[in-house]
Amino acid sequence: MPSDYPQMFVALLHFPVYNKVRQVVATSLTTLNLHDLARLTATYGTPGCYVVTPLQRQRELAHQMIVHWTQGYGATYNPTRAEALQHIHLVEHLEAVQQDILQRYGVAPRTIATDARQFPQCISYTALRQIIWQRRDAFLLLLGTGWGLAEEVMTQCEYILAPIYGLTPYNHLPVRVAAGIMLDRLLGQADAVAGSFPLPACDEKGTGSCML
Amino acid sequence: MPSDYPQMFVALLHFPVYNKVRQVVATSLTTLNLHDLARLTATYGTPGCYVVTPLQRQRELAHQMIVHWTQGYGATYNPTRAEALQHIHLVEHLEAVQQDILQRYGVAPRTIATDARQFPQCISYTALRQIIWQRRDAFLLLLGTGWGLAEEVMTQCEYILAPIYGLTPYNHLPVRVAAGIMLDRLLGQADAVAGSFPLPACDEKGTGSCML
Repeated sequence: MPSDYPQMFVALLHFPVYNKVRQVVATSLTTLNLHDLARLTATYGTPGCYVVTPLQRQRELAHQMIVHWTQGYGATYNPTRAEALQHIHLVEHLEAVQQDILQRYGVAPRTIATDARQFPQCISYTALRQIIWQRRDAFLLLLGTGWGLAEEVMTQCEYILAPIYGLTPYNHLPVRVAAGIMLDRLLGQADAVAGSFPLPACDEKGTGSCML
Repeated sequence: MPSDYPQMFVALLHFPVYNKVRQVVATSLTTLNLHDLARLTATYGTPGCYVVTPLQRQRELAHQMIVHWTQGYGATYNPTRAEALQHIHLVEHLEAVQQDILQRYGVAPRTIATDARQFPQCISYTALRQIIWQRRDAFLLLLGTGWGLAEEVMTQCEYILAPIYGLTPYNHLPVRVAAGIMLDRLLGQADAVAGSFPLPACDEKGTGSCML
């Protein structure tokens, strides 16, 4: 990835999140979310995609799956899956995500919480996209599972991203689909084609062939 | 949905599609794709989402699952899932999709094929979005499974949509995630919020608070 691209890390949190009755719980990891997020983050140039669960056995199982697809027989059977899964890191808690990013990449990313609910302090996609592309800082996008990130996580984030709405008031998308739409709204350029890369640098107004 | 919104139907084809060695096959339906596409199409106001498989037993199993979630115990347990799954129709082949749309909605939609490969005649997202919002016709977006729609389907479509690229040359997204990005690029408005609906009508240039 060229050095003038923003660095957007992603973390999928299985804890602390809410269940249906607003208790703070740890949800179960699914291999499908791992596969989908891996491919998504490979598409949008995410340097690292963190999967957070305090449940050690689940981290171990996920690790076994990843090793199979990146180093085992699976790596030859499905190379695009192998390539995508290289970016996945399994960690115990959110603090470990930030520590790992600092250690591995030398940056302390600005955190962005996401939720299906609207809060007064939510930042719009347009505004956040502008910040992302103009400031060239590193960012960490936090995705929740279950019924959403616990308040203790939301309050420590620098930004809370507005929920996704399409053409109706219905906004109950699965996290893997919502994540794709978020990354595309924040980082994507609708008319990028195979030969576009690297994309031209963005001017301040984001005009022309650039990001806005 | 207001009558000046475009009508974008969606069909997920399990046949005819290619397998890894470019044979035309029928792929297996997955309940996860059904759930994800149902939620996605509820979000983007798709009047109907068709799931195409020639395999009768798979249509029967999928139907049982849908009945459980829309009419059985599942409908009270998870109302947002019930609401989304109302839009799913299970059919045997692509022609049945077009027949059903004509019968149920009185329109003959313009067909849009999608694929991960770039073809010379691909239409860009920007150009297709403009057509969709200005012409107010009905459209049918065809999503493939396996290794993509068979050529016999592609050649009968009016448009072939450009593949999705993010910030890297990697473009191997799962269909449920790709579909979300496509619908958002074609229909979405990044700053729509809960109180936005119905969205204002689009002027010809698509400026202001509108779609372009």
